[in-house]
Amino acid sequence: MAAFTTHHHNQAHLLGLLPTAGPKPRPGPFRVRMSLQETGPSVAVVGVTGAVGQEFLSVLSDRDFPYRSIKMLASKRSAGQRIAFQDQNYVVEELTAESFNGVDIALFSAGGSISKEFGPLAVDRGAIVVDNSSAFRMHDDVPLVIPEVNPDAMKGIKVGNGKGALIANPNCSTIICLMAATPLHRRSTVLRMVVSTYQAASGAGAAAMRELELQTHEVLAGKKPTCNIFQRQYAFNLFSHNSSVLPNGYNEEEMKLVKETRKIWNDPNVKVTATCIRVPVMRAHAESVNFQFENPLDEDTARDILKNAPGVVVIDDRASNNFPTPLEVSNKDDVAVGRIRRDVSQEGDYGLDIFVCGDQIRKGAALNAVQIAELLL
Amino acid sequence: MAAFTTHHHNQAHLLGLLPTAGPKPRPGPFRVRMSLQETGPSVAVVGVTGAVGQEFLSVLSDRDFPYRSIKMLASKRSAGQRIAFQDQNYVVEELTAESFNGVDIALFSAGGSISKEFGPLAVDRGAIVVDNSSAFRMHDDVPLVIPEVNPDAMKGIKVGNGKGALIANPNCSTIICLMAATPLHRRSTVLRMVVSTYQAASGAGAAAMRELELQTHEVLAGKKPTCNIFQRQYAFNLFSHNSSVLPNGYNEEEMKLVKETRKIWNDPNVKVTATCIRVPVMRAHAESVNFQFENPLDEDTARDILKNAPGVVVIDDRASNNFPTPLEVSNKDDVAVGRIRRDVSQEGDYGLDIFVCGDQIRKGAALNAVQIAELLL
Repeated sequence: MAAFTTHHHNQAHLLGLLPTAGPKPRPGPFRVRMSLQETGPSVAVVGVTGAVGQEFLSVLSDRDFPYRSIKMLASKRSAGQRIAFQDQNYVVEELTAESFNGVDIALFSAGGSISKEFGPLAVDRGAIVVDNSSAFRMHDDVPLVIPEVNPDAMKGIKVGNGKGALIANPNCSTIICLMAATPLHRRSTVLRMVVSTYQAASGAGAAAMRELELQTHEVLAGKKPTCNIFQRQYAFNLFSHNSSVLPNGYNEEEMKLVKETRKIWNDPNVKVTATCIRVPVMRAHAESVNFQFENPLDEDTARDILKNAPGVVVIDDRASNNFPTPLEVSNKDDVAVGRIRRDVSQEGDYGLDIFVCGDQIRKGAALNAVQIAELLL
Repeated sequence: MAAFTTHHHNQAHLLGLLPTAGPKPRPGPFRVRMSLQETGPSVAVVGVTGAVGQEFLSVLSDRDFPYRSIKMLASKRSAGQRIAFQDQNYVVEELTAESFNGVDIALFSAGGSISKEFGPLAVDRGAIVVDNSSAFRMHDDVPLVIPEVNPDAMKGIKVGNGKGALIANPNCSTIICLMAATPLHRRSTVLRMVVSTYQAASGAGAAAMRELELQTHEVLAGKKPTCNIFQRQYAFNLFSHNSSVLPNGYNEEEMKLVKETRKIWNDPNVKVTATCIRVPVMRAHAESVNFQFENPLDEDTARDILKNAPGVVVIDDRASNNFPTPLEVSNKDDVAVGRIRRDVSQEGDYGLDIFVCGDQIRKGAALNAVQIAELLL
């Protein structure tokens, strides 16, 4: 039973669009609705028809997030669509400033310009906004939070004290990288990270995922691929991340990894470089990360640390060549880490290489935001 | 007009299996055959029915490589197949020790065990073997050659002096990396490289390319993918390179990059680490390479050096986000370099990041071997 209605893909299981395991058991509708109506916050989901918006609903349901009411908000174009969620029917409403009257928590994922326009309006009306866009991430007064990493950054922000606030969800690549890097960093300070990403279509939205699927059909049939979202063939190809390239030669995606890491770790000295590449995978990112540490950290200790880290699963079987893949982590909450090994290019135990995979839509976006919302209660 | 016959793919153009530009003009058959029959060496192609074997023929033809005779050799299973090459018909012969009687140059690409068995037998019969396998690469007395990088390593080895010899073709990832890294290394010594690869199906042979294509059809149709070559789904997925993982946690592909770089540069001190990943791309590899240099090397100088490097083309247009892609370099001779930028994680101009793409079958294998053969004449 799906938590919400979406259009049907019969190949969705194999593409990693839907859970590979069956849906988690969840309490019956009666008990859920009772508790929600009595005690939970009033929630709004902004951009509910998008890939991350749909995942917000899935995660809220999977985690039995308590709410007394929930509003489905989107652009005028999507208004009027019907969404079935936890045995209730909802109609998508057009996003306006008034949408936020009486809202306690607003989960935003509708792009930076919508966040810039409506985020402050929601805060004015007393809502706590958890924003998945990059609009406010680097603002000094906006916490940038991965719950497993820096929950203290949002200390004092709570539902119920009548004050609105903005909290930013980090970029997907940053979240996935730091879920693995932070437990190591706590043991031995990371001096420098060299990151190369293998990023899925989902980071560019549901339309990009559909374009990759369409292009693949076309290319296999010997037809010219349709290039609407990206400017080039994506099927059976890869390319430098499509974000703008800045004057220093890095693209925006790469500089997010550099700057957000510094802010989340509250460490202006940590050195990060990144090369961000889009690969023809549907919804989970992979990252190759090379570390230089301040103090020795051997690979066995690193593996143990990661095995015990919340939200992390270690898949590191050298004998059977079994390591994390994007498909395996698709629709999963945990970030998977493997290929944990001493870096042969560094002296002693001052360097490590790892390979990380995480679901871009889930921990990279919706799950992390809902976890932030849970801390607000 | 194709230089040789192969089975037909109507989608081959879009998958990068065939040249995206038209075939190069080449001299008419009469003139070619005359010169070949009179003055060229006797050539044997070992593993002629494989992906690299077929590319040997394509490259020999494209470059008007002179030969007075050519033998098409393969396993017993493929013997008897017919190959049309430069307006002549050939029958594939079963590989035996006697195959090399009278052969001047033998191009091998039939796997390490075939090279180990038949390479020395060919040398005994006076042939110069250019071997694409890893069997002899690290042997002290076997030159490991990229013609643009270290042609001197094979000095003194010539067709016509009656002496057999072995020359090894480096691993595809090493060739593609060093085509870009060496011109920079000549200007400012590379102290350390951190490499992450995005490797195509072709590196695992023609059967792997067909499996990727088949799996993609299957997954799009909602079927379970066929996994014969690899142990897991490859379509819309990626995974750590399928070579064996060594006790130090690196896989063989990664250690080839580490060790072959040291040998080719004749620099036992150069520090290299690599993470090698297989991505669902057909026939060209990509690599993200981070450099630490001994002396400052600014990005503009690096770009100029690469623009003037033989066998390298620079695609580095930040304004239009136009950088190298595997599809663009498929069936091309040149290695493409872009994303050339100062590494923000290092002081001053001591670090650079680049992104490299090269055709795995062509410069990564067949072209490099034929270029070596040209140096023998």
